[in-house]
This record gives sequence, structure tokens and C-alpha cells, in this order.
Amino acid sequence: DEPFVLIAGPCQLESADHGAMIAGRLAEACAKLGVGFVFKASFDKANRTSHAGQRGMGIDAGLAALAAIKSDIGCPIITDVHHPEQCDPVAEVADILQIPAFLCRQTDLLQAAAKTNAVINIKKGQFLAPWDMEHVIDKVTYAGNDRVLLTERGTSFGYNTLITDMRALPQMAKTGYPVIMDATHSVQQPGGLGGASGGQREFAPVMARAAISLGIAGVFIETHDQPEKAPSDGPNMIALDEMPNLIESLKLFDEIAKTNPIRL
Amino acid sequence: DEPFVLIAGPCQLESADHGAMIAGRLAEACAKLGVGFVFKASFDKANRTSHAGQRGMGIDAGLAALAAIKSDIGCPIITDVHHPEQCDPVAEVADILQIPAFLCRQTDLLQAAAKTNAVINIKKGQFLAPWDMEHVIDKVTYAGNDRVLLTERGTSFGYNTLITDMRALPQMAKTGYPVIMDATHSVQQPGGLGGASGGQREFAPVMARAAISLGIAGVFIETHDQPEKAPSDGPNMIALDEMPNLIESLKLFDEIAKTNPIRL
Amino acid sequence: DEPFVLIAGPCQLESADHGAMIAGRLAEACAKLGVGFVFKASFDKANRTSHAGQRGMGIDAGLAALAAIKSDIGCPIITDVHHPEQCDPVAEVADILQIPAFLCRQTDLLQAAAKTNAVINIKKGQFLAPWDMEHVIDKVTYAGNDRVLLTERGTSFGYNTLITDMRALPQMAKTGYPVIMDATHSVQQPGGLGGASGGQREFAPVMARAAISLGIAGVFIETHDQPEKAPSDGPNMIALDEMPNLIESLKLFDEIAKTNPIRL
Amino acid sequence: DEPFVLIAGPCQLESADHGAMIAGRLAEACAKLGVGFVFKASFDKANRTSHAGQRGMGIDAGLAALAAIKSDIGCPIITDVHHPEQCDPVAEVADILQIPAFLCRQTDLLQAAAKTNAVINIKKGQFLAPWDMEHVIDKVTYAGNDRVLLTERGTSFGYNTLITDMRALPQMAKTGYPVIMDATHSVQQPGGLGGASGGQREFAPVMARAAISLGIAGVFIETHDQPEKAPSDGPNMIALDEMPNLIESLKLFDEIAKTNPIRL
Repeated sequence: DEPFVLIAGPCQLESADHGAMIAGRLAEACAKLGVGFVFKASFDKANRTSHAGQRGMGIDAGLAALAAIKSDIGCPIITDVHHPEQCDPVAEVADILQIPAFLCRQTDLLQAAAKTNAVINIKKGQFLAPWDMEHVIDKVTYAGNDRVLLTERGTSFGYNTLITDMRALPQMAKTGYPVIMDATHSVQQPGGLGGASGGQREFAPVMARAAISLGIAGVFIETHDQPEKAPSDGPNMIALDEMPNLIESLKLFDEIAKTNPIRL
Repeated sequence: DEPFVLIAGPCQLESADHGAMIAGRLAEACAKLGVGFVFKASFDKANRTSHAGQRGMGIDAGLAALAAIKSDIGCPIITDVHHPEQCDPVAEVADILQIPAFLCRQTDLLQAAAKTNAVINIKKGQFLAPWDMEHVIDKVTYAGNDRVLLTERGTSFGYNTLITDMRALPQMAKTGYPVIMDATHSVQQPGGLGGASGGQREFAPVMARAAISLGIAGVFIETHDQPEKAPSDGPNMIALDEMPNLIESLKLFDEIAKTNPIRL
Repeated sequence: DEPFVLIAGPCQLESADHGAMIAGRLAEACAKLGVGFVFKASFDKANRTSHAGQRGMGIDAGLAALAAIKSDIGCPIITDVHHPEQCDPVAEVADILQIPAFLCRQTDLLQAAAKTNAVINIKKGQFLAPWDMEHVIDKVTYAGNDRVLLTERGTSFGYNTLITDMRALPQMAKTGYPVIMDATHSVQQPGGLGGASGGQREFAPVMARAAISLGIAGVFIETHDQPEKAPSDGPNMIALDEMPNLIESLKLFDEIAKTNPIRL
Repeated sequence: DEPFVLIAGPCQLESADHGAMIAGRLAEACAKLGVGFVFKASFDKANRTSHAGQRGMGIDAGLAALAAIKSDIGCPIITDVHHPEQCDPVAEVADILQIPAFLCRQTDLLQAAAKTNAVINIKKGQFLAPWDMEHVIDKVTYAGNDRVLLTERGTSFGYNTLITDMRALPQMAKTGYPVIMDATHSVQQPGGLGGASGGQREFAPVMARAAISLGIAGVFIETHDQPEKAPSDGPNMIALDEMPNLIESLKLFDEIAKTNPIRL
């Protein structure tokens, strides 16, 4: 019943300075509203549509940049891991390790992440039902870690399209773990531009608001000062300038949602 | 930007007295909150899963009962039509003619309904994209009637399952016509019980709230004093006793939604 | 275990002469191969995407033209009905009454058609699971007619797309009723061209062949001498000139399929 | 236009002896019919539904067993890889490295596999459109290896269900790379048994036959002498005893398909 948390940042980490600029502006907007903030950026985009898509800074430079941002802005950090051996070094910097949706059933990755004792944010695979996440969670808790977050990011719906089932949010919340809505990946159009994913950024605030009204724990948003120049996921990102107003309006819905909880 | 309207009632009209009892309780709850109310009930269930499912009172007895309820409670009436020749007699009693989802592309039905000059509520077919509704609307306006409502009631998603795309609501609102969320049919499980549809009534308030938070014109809910005894759609109905609290909480979200409109 | 039957013709009946030309060429190609032939054409397209789409000849002129083709070519006729009152007059000419997919749960239409004692071809709705057809069949047999055909024409898959589940064919065949594959509507892209449906005619032979290899009773194909000029469904039609080769190749697969039946 | 190849074996490698027994029976059945045979078994099930599902022999014991089977039976071997560092050791034994469907967009894995110069069999992700595979293939060819196979194994369709679009086979064949139909995974019901996947083994021969009739390069089938005792994927496996008859009937369809190629 606490206020929602914002997990936000660019899709791909571009530099320590660029990341700190974004983190700083988001942290400031959140602080004004009493909203928790976690900075998100990826050091490696390991599953781009095309081999020609930019991969990112890589693990060494990326972790150094994330550490700098963390110390600079004073916010917790979330980033995604792709191989079991990345979990230990990443957990030295990141507070939350994120399991990518495509990898959410890879037992070795889940368990290596779990063993770091970081918080584990599991993105629900586009190919899973909400109730299937129970077994995914078990893989983490079996490894001795019950600090789990569950993130909805849309479900396969025909070709090159995702759809979000709002029922999934309270359904997953029944596990007892905090549920996050990924408002920007859920409006991706995977492969929709041929060699890259398209997206419908205009609908990201729609997804965020509908989800927040159900009383979830947090919302995940990718944002950029110049979305059209972002090296990945530009079409579904929200412009950084629009974030303060969006957070403010979400806060209004969050407050009523938390005093009027949905009970299944 | 006006407060949302509630369209509600039992799925199937059982008698004038039973309908009036439900209409009376809903009208009272709505009046307290300044929420508009339209009574909904069907005189014929023309497309039951099984031939053994109860069809209802029929058009003559049904229209007489609806007229009695309307005069008794003083609320507008919505009911569905299935054949072009039903439109004229139904429009003598009903304020809103509803086009069933399966029939939403039947040109003759749409145009016969349009010509009555009643308001026409078109349910989006489970097989249509939101943007396909533009051409459905055109069939009505081409017949000279632009008093159109558009209702979302879920989209086919695999077998025996519906899913609701929240993007459809602002997408359809771009047509300029009022958009209604059908919170109970969207949680149907068509054919899910073999010879009848199943449903997940626990999720109906979830659908209503998420939709209302987007600032839509109204919400459609089937309700019954004893849902488990309702002759149709019992598994997805909300109990009548729970309606006042639900309307009250929806009103809270509606108010913020109307002062913070979503713009695509 | 008899050879497959071809149900084919233009989507929309354009004139008696045009229909007879197509029926004649198809009947000739089928006769050479010992394949049964039924001529299909619609006198009214009652659910076009747009009100501006051509509706067709209408029931009076259409039935006269179908009667002329039947007497001219000597082949059985199938055509679709949309309202209960159409069933009797249509059954005076047509040997098979077809229930459109969108209307496959409309009890009155199914039962009016059943009572004519014509053969009833029910197209499976795009929103139904194969096993749901059992209850649809019951509506017809309950009205005293067990001469039923079941046609697969694709299932909703995301927006503006259909997909065909080959499992549906043997699944429906378990009812004991003959199963037909509609090879051209199953490659429609409903609403895919905005104001009209698109289609992938290049895949129609793929659907026909895969289905025939499973030993079904027949295949349904819309064809035209000039598909690009057809008033409806042109994008998914097969050119008339290509039909003889297609029928011939399907016959090869049909023969092995019938001697090697799939048993569930 | 060559005869189809059978890729088959148990889902999970249980022992060298058990694998050799299955490989021997399949190789014998294929040899009689002039059908090529590749033995498939996994040394590690890296993405079981539940952590309690059996993982398998592991890489060291598994590769030793596969090497023994290969030398014993004299057939090529295919097995799946999950981490980039597995590719080199696996390629010392296996002739074909298989990329699991969930991992088909993981650039590092695809490129590590490519660099071994083994043949690479890429399973199409349940979340991908057939045309998206072009970019997946590019990741492999960009790493200097163009010995690629593409395998269809079904697409997400609602919850806990897969559907196979037969159009995907000729669509993927347009890339010029051989296309394989995975007849047993495509009838899986992912998560359908709660803590494990269900399956509809009765439909696996349906999928195989429909696909073979389209003239594809090969079919992939998991089989076991006692499917109900198999440590994974039992519900969708074909019994080993039924394999000779199935291969024989597929051969009949393959022959006509190869002399009557589908051309898009």
C-alpha cells in the first residue's frame, strides 16, 4: 500500500554523463512527489532484432558508468543480465538484477542471479500465461532468494504485436510479490520495422495509467531526451520532458488505488 | 468530460418485476453519486452456446416488461436487436439499440437500427481491430444517424478466451464517438464450460477500473441479485449487492481521469 | 473415404452468364479427375467491411441466376443465407445452404436453415474453438436435420490476421460430419486494406494441400477469371486458369490421404 | 527436391544405451525407406517449466553418450546449446547445433554456434513471425556460416497453447534455407499441466503430414519407447513403435510433394 516506484531510464546506456543527466532529472521529479526512483539502463542489448543493431557499452564500461551514476545521483540501479557468469559482477553495482523476458525460463540464469542476493526483477515472457510465473518464481526462491519483482511487458498477439492483459497484474500480485508494469515495452511492435522493432509511444501513458489504477507496486518506463535518436527502442520511449507530468498524473491514480485495493 | 454513465442490468430479462427491482437499486446507487444510469436487459438471447440455453421472454413480452420498467423507474433503456425487422418495434421502447458483437458487420441490421433514430450502441466484434470500427460506424452514419456509442467487450485470444486491449479505448475515442467498456462480457470464457460460456467475475471490477481511469464515457456491467441462478452469463456477472461500492470507487477514478484526459 | 469434393466459384455472383462460364470450366476440370463439384456464389454480401462495398445481385435476381447455372451446367449449388426468412426461398434453388462464419451461433438462422432439409454447411466462426462446433451442430440436428457440413475458414490471430489450425480438421471430423477446408477465406486479411479485406492468394494452394493431405471431405475455393476485378475478395482468390492444375495436384494428395487415414 | 530427412530421438538423453537403442531402431526404419536420419537428444533441459523438472545428463556425460551413439549407429547427431561457451565442445561431437526457440534472438549464442562451422538449426521463437527469421539467419551468416536449418515449432496462441501456421513453412523456405517441421513440440501445451507442459501427441502425425505435403526438407519428432515415463515432453511424444509406420506414410506424401513443388 506504499506509493508506486518508478523504474526508468534510457533503454541502452550511452555514457555515464548521459545516464546521469537522465537519472538526475527523473530523481528530481520523483523526489518532489514522494515517488521512489530506480535508474534503469542496459550495458548490453543481447537480443537485438538485427546483428546490425547497436549492442551498447559492454559489461566493463557499462558497470563503471552505472556505478558512477549511482554514486552521483544516489539512486538504486537496475540492469539486465544475460549469462549466469554476469550475475556476480553486475550485482556488485546493481541493486536489482533484471531477467529479460526471453530468458525468464532459463534455470541457470535465474539461479545464478538469485544467489547474488540482489533483488531479482523477472520480466514475464511474451509466451507465458500470468499463472506460469509461479514456477519461474520458484526457481529463484529455491536458490534461496525471495526478493523478487514480477514485471508485465505484454504477451504475443498475432504477428509483430503485443497485447497486455490487465488481469495479469492482480493475478501475479496474488503470489505476494510486487508487480511492475512495463509501460514502454508493452507497446513495442516486435520486428515491426523489419530490421528493428516498432512501437507506439503514444500508448505508453495509457498502459501506465490503467495499470497504476489497479494498485500495483511500480511502473517501468524507458525514456530519452531525444527518443528519435536513441540507439534502441526509440519508437516506444517517452520523451524525458514529458516524464514529470506523467509521474504527477500517475501519482493521483496511485493514491486512490492504494486506498481502494482490488481484491480478487 | 462529463461523469461516466453506467449501463447495467441482468443479462436476460426475467420479468418486469425482477427487472424493476434491479433497475431500482442501480438507479438509486447512481443517483447518490451523480452517475447517469441506463437499464440493460435482453428480451432474446439469440446466439447462446447451446440450443438448450434459455432464450428469454421474447420480443412482445420483453418489450412490454421493458416499457413497464422504464415508466416505473424513470431510466432510459438499452436492449439488443438481432434482425432488421426488430429495430422499429424495439425503438418504440428502448432509447438505445444495441448491435451484438457477432453482428457488428451485418449491414442490414446496422442500417435498420440507424433509421430508427435511436442511439446505436455497437459492440466491437471479438474478431475486429479497434481501427476496423471506423467502417462499422460509417454504415450507421451513412444511414443518417450519428448518435453512436462504441463498446469494447474483448478480443479473441487463443481458444475459449478473450483479452482486452486497453489501447482500444482511446483508439476508438479518436473517432469522436463515446466509448463504453463492457466489464463483464470482456471476462467471459466463450464456450469455456462446454455447453455454456464460463467467466471470471472476479476480474470484472479490474476491467472497469482500468478502463474508467482512461476517461471513457461509460461502463457496461451485467449484474444479478443471485448470479449463480441467472439464466445466462452468471459466471461473469457482478452480484447486485456489490454494485454500490463498485460504482462509488469507479467514480473516484472517473473524476481524476476527466480532469487529466489521455490525449493520443 | 471417397474422393474430395470441390466447392468453388466467384465470391459474389455477377451474372448468370459469368457464373455459368466459371461453373462450366470448373465442372469440366473436376469431371476429368472424378472429383465432385458444387458451384458456390453469393447473391448478397451482407457483411462487407465498408458500406461502399458492392453487395451483389440481391436475392431475386441472384436465385434466378443460380437456377439458370444449375440447369445449364448440371451441378449442385451452394449459397449463403443471412436471415431466417431467406432460407425457404433459397432452398428452392440451392442444394446446400451456407451459414456465414459471423452468424454461426445465431440460433434462429441455423434452425430456419435446418428446417428446409437442405444440406447445411456451417462455417466455423473466427472466434470459436473447433470443439465449440459440437453445440453449433446440435442446433441444426435438434431442428431435425443431420445433413451437416463443417467448414474451417481460419481463426482470429491478433489484429487483421487469420490463422488456420490444422488440428481443427481431424478434431471436427470426430463429430462424424464431413469437413471442408476453405482455402481462400483462410488467407484473408480481414480489414487489412482499411476499407476492405486484404488477402494472400499465394498461400491458398498451401492451405488446400495441407488440409487435403489430412483426408478431409472437400475443399472450398473462391476463383475468378480476373481476380483483380472481382467485386469482393479479389486479393485472396485463385485465378480460374490455375484451377485445373491445382485440382489435379490436390487429387494426388487426396488419394494417398484416403488410403492412409489419420486417426486421432 | 531430395527426400525428407528425419530428425528424431528422445527429448532428453537418458543414457548411451537407451539413446543407441532408439537411434538404432529409427536408423533402421529410415534406411529401409531411403530417408536420411539424424539422432536428436538433449544433454541438458535448461528451461524446464519447473525447477523440479529433471535437467538431464549434463554436458560431459551427455557428449560422451552422444559420441558413443554416433560411433555405434553411424548417424549424424543434433543437440541443443544454451550458452556460447558450450558451442565449441558440443561441435566436437554434434554435426548440427540447435538453437532453442526461446534463445533464437540471443546474438552471442547464435554467433558462437556459427563460428564452430557446424550446421546450425534455429528453432523459430514462439514469439516471432516467420519473416522475422531473416534477421536471425543474418546473425549466423554474418559470423561466416551459411549452413543453416530453420525449424517451425509453433507460435503462441492465447495462454498455454501453440498454433502452427502452415504458411510459415513456404514463407521461411523463400530464404533458401532448408525448413524442418517440429511435429511434437508444435503440439505442446506450454505450462498446460501447471508445473509441466502438456501435449497432444495424437496431433503430432497431423502436423508432420500437413507439413511434409508442402515439400519441406525434414521433420523433427521426439519419440520414446515409453513416452509416459519420459523425463520430459512425454505428453507430446510419439511412441517409438509407431514411428516406422509414420515414416512410411510420410514418405508417400513427400514423394508427391517433391514432384509437385509449392511455389509462392
